[in-house]
Amino acid sequence: MTVKPTSFEPALPPALFEQDQTNPYLAKAIELREIFALDAAERDQQGGRPSDEIRRLKESDLVNLLIPTEFGGEGQPYSTALRIVREFAKVDGSLAHLFGYHFSPIQNAVTSGSDERSAAILRRSAEGRWFWGNTTNSFSKSLFGRKVEGGVLLNGDRPFASGSHVADYLMVAWEDEKTNARNVAYIPANRAGITIADDWDGIGQRQTGSGRVFYKDVTVRDDEILLERPKDPSALLIPQQQQSVLLNVFVGSAQGALIAAREYTVTTSRPWIYSGVERHSDDPWIKRQYGELWTKVQAATALADRAASAMDSAYAKGAALTAQERGATAIAVACANVLAGKVALEVTSEIFEVMGARSAVRPLGFDRFWRNVRIHTLHNPAEYKTRNVGAWFLTGDYPEPGIFQ
Amino acid sequence: MTVKPTSFEPALPPALFEQDQTNPYLAKAIELREIFALDAAERDQQGGRPSDEIRRLKESDLVNLLIPTEFGGEGQPYSTALRIVREFAKVDGSLAHLFGYHFSPIQNAVTSGSDERSAAILRRSAEGRWFWGNTTNSFSKSLFGRKVEGGVLLNGDRPFASGSHVADYLMVAWEDEKTNARNVAYIPANRAGITIADDWDGIGQRQTGSGRVFYKDVTVRDDEILLERPKDPSALLIPQQQQSVLLNVFVGSAQGALIAAREYTVTTSRPWIYSGVERHSDDPWIKRQYGELWTKVQAATALADRAASAMDSAYAKGAALTAQERGATAIAVACANVLAGKVALEVTSEIFEVMGARSAVRPLGFDRFWRNVRIHTLHNPAEYKTRNVGAWFLTGDYPEPGIFQ
Amino acid sequence: MTVKPTSFEPALPPALFEQDQTNPYLAKAIELREIFALDAAERDQQGGRPSDEIRRLKESDLVNLLIPTEFGGEGQPYSTALRIVREFAKVDGSLAHLFGYHFSPIQNAVTSGSDERSAAILRRSAEGRWFWGNTTNSFSKSLFGRKVEGGVLLNGDRPFASGSHVADYLMVAWEDEKTNARNVAYIPANRAGITIADDWDGIGQRQTGSGRVFYKDVTVRDDEILLERPKDPSALLIPQQQQSVLLNVFVGSAQGALIAAREYTVTTSRPWIYSGVERHSDDPWIKRQYGELWTKVQAATALADRAASAMDSAYAKGAALTAQERGATAIAVACANVLAGKVALEVTSEIFEVMGARSAVRPLGFDRFWRNVRIHTLHNPAEYKTRNVGAWFLTGDYPEPGIFQ
Amino acid sequence: MTVKPTSFEPALPPALFEQDQTNPYLAKAIELREIFALDAAERDQQGGRPSDEIRRLKESDLVNLLIPTEFGGEGQPYSTALRIVREFAKVDGSLAHLFGYHFSPIQNAVTSGSDERSAAILRRSAEGRWFWGNTTNSFSKSLFGRKVEGGVLLNGDRPFASGSHVADYLMVAWEDEKTNARNVAYIPANRAGITIADDWDGIGQRQTGSGRVFYKDVTVRDDEILLERPKDPSALLIPQQQQSVLLNVFVGSAQGALIAAREYTVTTSRPWIYSGVERHSDDPWIKRQYGELWTKVQAATALADRAASAMDSAYAKGAALTAQERGATAIAVACANVLAGKVALEVTSEIFEVMGARSAVRPLGFDRFWRNVRIHTLHNPAEYKTRNVGAWFLTGDYPEPGIFQ
Repeated sequence: MTVKPTSFEPALPPALFEQDQTNPYLAKAIELREIFALDAAERDQQGGRPSDEIRRLKESDLVNLLIPTEFGGEGQPYSTALRIVREFAKVDGSLAHLFGYHFSPIQNAVTSGSDERSAAILRRSAEGRWFWGNTTNSFSKSLFGRKVEGGVLLNGDRPFASGSHVADYLMVAWEDEKTNARNVAYIPANRAGITIADDWDGIGQRQTGSGRVFYKDVTVRDDEILLERPKDPSALLIPQQQQSVLLNVFVGSAQGALIAAREYTVTTSRPWIYSGVERHSDDPWIKRQYGELWTKVQAATALADRAASAMDSAYAKGAALTAQERGATAIAVACANVLAGKVALEVTSEIFEVMGARSAVRPLGFDRFWRNVRIHTLHNPAEYKTRNVGAWFLTGDYPEPGIFQ
Repeated sequence: MTVKPTSFEPALPPALFEQDQTNPYLAKAIELREIFALDAAERDQQGGRPSDEIRRLKESDLVNLLIPTEFGGEGQPYSTALRIVREFAKVDGSLAHLFGYHFSPIQNAVTSGSDERSAAILRRSAEGRWFWGNTTNSFSKSLFGRKVEGGVLLNGDRPFASGSHVADYLMVAWEDEKTNARNVAYIPANRAGITIADDWDGIGQRQTGSGRVFYKDVTVRDDEILLERPKDPSALLIPQQQQSVLLNVFVGSAQGALIAAREYTVTTSRPWIYSGVERHSDDPWIKRQYGELWTKVQAATALADRAASAMDSAYAKGAALTAQERGATAIAVACANVLAGKVALEVTSEIFEVMGARSAVRPLGFDRFWRNVRIHTLHNPAEYKTRNVGAWFLTGDYPEPGIFQ
Repeated sequence: MTVKPTSFEPALPPALFEQDQTNPYLAKAIELREIFALDAAERDQQGGRPSDEIRRLKESDLVNLLIPTEFGGEGQPYSTALRIVREFAKVDGSLAHLFGYHFSPIQNAVTSGSDERSAAILRRSAEGRWFWGNTTNSFSKSLFGRKVEGGVLLNGDRPFASGSHVADYLMVAWEDEKTNARNVAYIPANRAGITIADDWDGIGQRQTGSGRVFYKDVTVRDDEILLERPKDPSALLIPQQQQSVLLNVFVGSAQGALIAAREYTVTTSRPWIYSGVERHSDDPWIKRQYGELWTKVQAATALADRAASAMDSAYAKGAALTAQERGATAIAVACANVLAGKVALEVTSEIFEVMGARSAVRPLGFDRFWRNVRIHTLHNPAEYKTRNVGAWFLTGDYPEPGIFQ
Repeated sequence: MTVKPTSFEPALPPALFEQDQTNPYLAKAIELREIFALDAAERDQQGGRPSDEIRRLKESDLVNLLIPTEFGGEGQPYSTALRIVREFAKVDGSLAHLFGYHFSPIQNAVTSGSDERSAAILRRSAEGRWFWGNTTNSFSKSLFGRKVEGGVLLNGDRPFASGSHVADYLMVAWEDEKTNARNVAYIPANRAGITIADDWDGIGQRQTGSGRVFYKDVTVRDDEILLERPKDPSALLIPQQQQSVLLNVFVGSAQGALIAAREYTVTTSRPWIYSGVERHSDDPWIKRQYGELWTKVQAATALADRAASAMDSAYAKGAALTAQERGATAIAVACANVLAGKVALEVTSEIFEVMGARSAVRPLGFDRFWRNVRIHTLHNPAEYKTRNVGAWFLTGDYPEPGIFQ
């Protein structure tokens, strides 16, 4: 069940003349979004763990959204998850991020669903309504494994372990201390020897728990380690997954900031003393700037929709996905990501101009949108995604599959 | 038969994994585009009448594209015409403009197709493969009509009479010399007393013939005058039609400029002396700038596609179209128009930077893209369209239907 | 003694070939800046009162910088104060703001220095090394005065009372409860009945104490009230003073952010995995983006320097200043303010892109630059200053002197 | 005699309060500018040779402006030439370019004025009121010299030979056919065997004669060849000279376009139908956009002024110029060039938006500003200048002296 654009896009087809057939997952997400909104500004200041919110997610069907029905999940397309990421990001970028990244280990297992180990993990995840985190950051070589009888012993640490602080289960990656080969496993977050430092103190995305996780003599059983898979194109969509989550956090943040600003402008902003108008919204300047903001948010949304469709198509192909189709998907996602990041930075900063000076106080929390987007767009540089797009346009060569691309 | 995105959008769904079902009209348009391309730069310098090109259009089915099948036309959706406008604009903004505006009188007749006078004109237009022009500019009050036995006598002139220089038939508007009421009629372009000055000398869109037409004692028969229609929402889509043609000229110009630049860069540009690369396209700068250009063209294209769908939906509704639906269509078109204009101006100027100094000579004609877009975006100010979008977003009020909005 | 550009502008004349003759006030300011820098990020998180820092300012000659020597001050030109505002803003926007605004009451007294009441306040201020705050916000009509024997009784409150929390003396403005006439007085900050709420909680400029001050039956003596002055042009420079302080906070913030980013990039940033370079600063992207940042900061600095010279010239004219010269000064200041705000917003956001993801954590405090600039640029809309500049350019009419212009 | 800013900068010091002491050379240039303006749009369409205009320049003292008085010239600083380049570019970019480049061979001789060969050429140039062109393009290796008795025989051609079509004397560069060593000589333009093709057909700068010059068995005498000079920093300022001319063409074009647009807007533009104002200049939009245009032109002008001062300082140092001072000058010029190009492109395109659709016709010639700037900014890429600035800011390393930097 693909999600139709909602009332946020009143002017755009196909929502234009058709009644939106309500998608129950999206409806649930909107319901949760309204709850998350209540203390989003406060939780942004606090940082730490959004425990209540994760509990609500787990109590809903959303936690199992992408697990195929054969394993007990909801079997929805990837684009629905992205659409929900966007909804959450309208009020809370951290929850949007956590929700989106939750599906990385799941999707990883789905694309290798034919092997029994993956099938088992999906079944157990669905049944236990697990929430997933990861400690797989690929930049730092700081977590090493030593082969022992029946498994591997892990020692070291991982930074940027988003979601680990609220996770039931973790995807963990390490380098073999001898061969330096990278391995990945799924393990419970409460496995002995794991310490989640919960020391994340970013300028934004403050409840993502993107701090460090320490491993001291942590045992990973052989049957928890992912089997080596052939590197066919469909197995190489992980960077596009990540990029898709990020870009929908950007789009949702931009949409949410714009909606919040509109509300403030209409209800609270006062016209400028030299404006000669009675309502701030009647100032030609305010009309124009909102018109520009709306238009650029629409453009970012349109490319995000196209990229989401590309992801659905790619996953639908499964093992039949060609390298070229994988490449085309990567280009669509890269374009959408770059535009969404740019637009979100502009929108989350400009909203203050149309709200006015009194809007820029901490208790209102409007600055969290910019801080969330500012830090999240640094995850990997737009410059390199843009170069990849340009190189492909000039030469027809798709970016070499790899980290972030 | 709706047109699927073509190979220009290789990375974007739904073209991504499906074989594009070739649309025969689009195929024909592409064939013509290639012919128009041969001397487009030369004709841009000359100005004047693209007589051969109009003849080719009339020999094809494209001339009757939007006339309903019941009247002998091809009965295609409006979006197909817009898609062809875009194709032509890739090489020749003037022909794109003429082709798009050709359908204004036709569409005007279509929306009032139930009256016999309109039906007759559509039948005759289809049969005669007429090409349409207009002398209806609404800014200048300079053409007046006097009631006479069996008709009206016209005296005066009209500026900006695009297409009049190649037209078989004209839509003409005048003010009644007594009542000042505006009237519209369809008349043959060779009616006695009409002088087409062919004095257009714009900086771009040079073969659009947007100069003056003089009327000296020109007779319009009563049965050539359009009947007064109730001003229901569907009758008020004329500004959106115009805006749609314009925005697709912008989008096509941006696409065409980018394609032409890519060709030049790959085949002709030399790497910069300090670049350290052997191919210009390997310079990180060139990759990045092309990546940015591509991404912004995609964004403009996406909003243009949405606006075209909105137009199709609105026309499909016919007399049942509500004021709100008409308003939503107007917002979608306004957004798309503003973004397309902005993007097209940027792209048509920036291409020189990635091609290099030797590309900026007259015989190559790359500057026609910017000149075409620069003049065409002045047709009506983006500022006011943007204000309308902003006002709607803030208040929910759609722009009052009227000239240009 | 006018300040020469310092080593921050190594490429720009006249610093280019001449040895900068050290200005002792600037040297002292730089010394203090280095001290302020030590805990600037921490104090930004805390908010509240920068008591130690204000004490240091009072212990230096800087507190009396603009008081004429005849009254016991240092007698320096206004531009020197602005130059020091810029230095402080390189590390701490709040102190820059407080220091700049400290001079508003003083400058107000200076321009009316021939009356004995003003002379006395300047003498006492110099002698007591007073630090000044204000409770004069002109937007809210919320503080009223009632004439009583020998003076006025004040009741009500003022928002945005920057500096009141660290002030020895306050400039206070109120409306007469009967006539609604606005009056201004200089009174000690510890006058009975004054409560400084210290409730400022902006997203930036967090130690400016721009919260509310409450007045309950506060007595103002007649001899504390400013005499009515003829509204000659030199008396109408108060808005330009304010704008000048603001714009130099913007310029200094941009410079400081850029310097801090450079330090981080050179010492800490890691090259991107696909960059192929060993130092991040060797990536063509990083070179380009720093080049762009530098260039735009130079442009903002150049207009700020011109505006500062205009202010010095205007003050040097004194009562002889013509309305036209006042207008020309206002235009120079408006231009500089608008450009500085725009550049500062861009620079303080973009620095993260060239530093990388790890730079965006709270303890490093780099986000305070953007938050400071974002809130401070909302003080009054750039839109209206820009319109004033445009109107003057088109018509020759200078903006009507008034609040903010 | 350094030129003070003129009335174009009414709001900016030092012109603010001082009477501009009229510089006679600038006054003459303004007089000529007004004459050049009369048919500038027409000559832009024609291309070819501005023979009358060059004659007028030669009849004035401007032709000898930079030749030291000891050799019979006017002995003015380089900045005065640049200021005049700017004046000419306000109406005619080609003449600005020709005038600026005319001084390249002269300045080259000046910096080596102590050798008798250079002194002689300066004396003869001053006396004969020679106008200089060049055939020295360093990109193409297409002109070769063969050593013969008493001189060299040249065969081949040179592209981009700006000014050759109106020159009395040429600076010519060639490669030795055996050693490939580059040599330079000063020779009369009418030397036997030289054919000036006059085949320049750029999209702009149409009277610069930047076409090809053919050499067939052209004799260069030994005493016409420049002596090898030590490559001290002052001898390496040629790229900065070129860049300075270019950037002042950009600044002057932006200023001229803005002045022309203002005139048109005030006298001719009609208010938009939905504006509700009687004068176009009363539309808040028009005021804002002109305010933005003015502000950005001021910023470009300010950096151009700083760069011109740097050039004067560098030349004043002469042989004592250090590598570091040369580098600092190069950075100042690069910054100013990049900003000027960017601003000029924006201004020359945006003016149409504030003038309206009727302004975009060929006879008015407003598009020549954009075409001139567009082609001229391609001379060498802003990207690389920007990288040089960034690299210097990050590392302190000045760009390696060389072509264009």
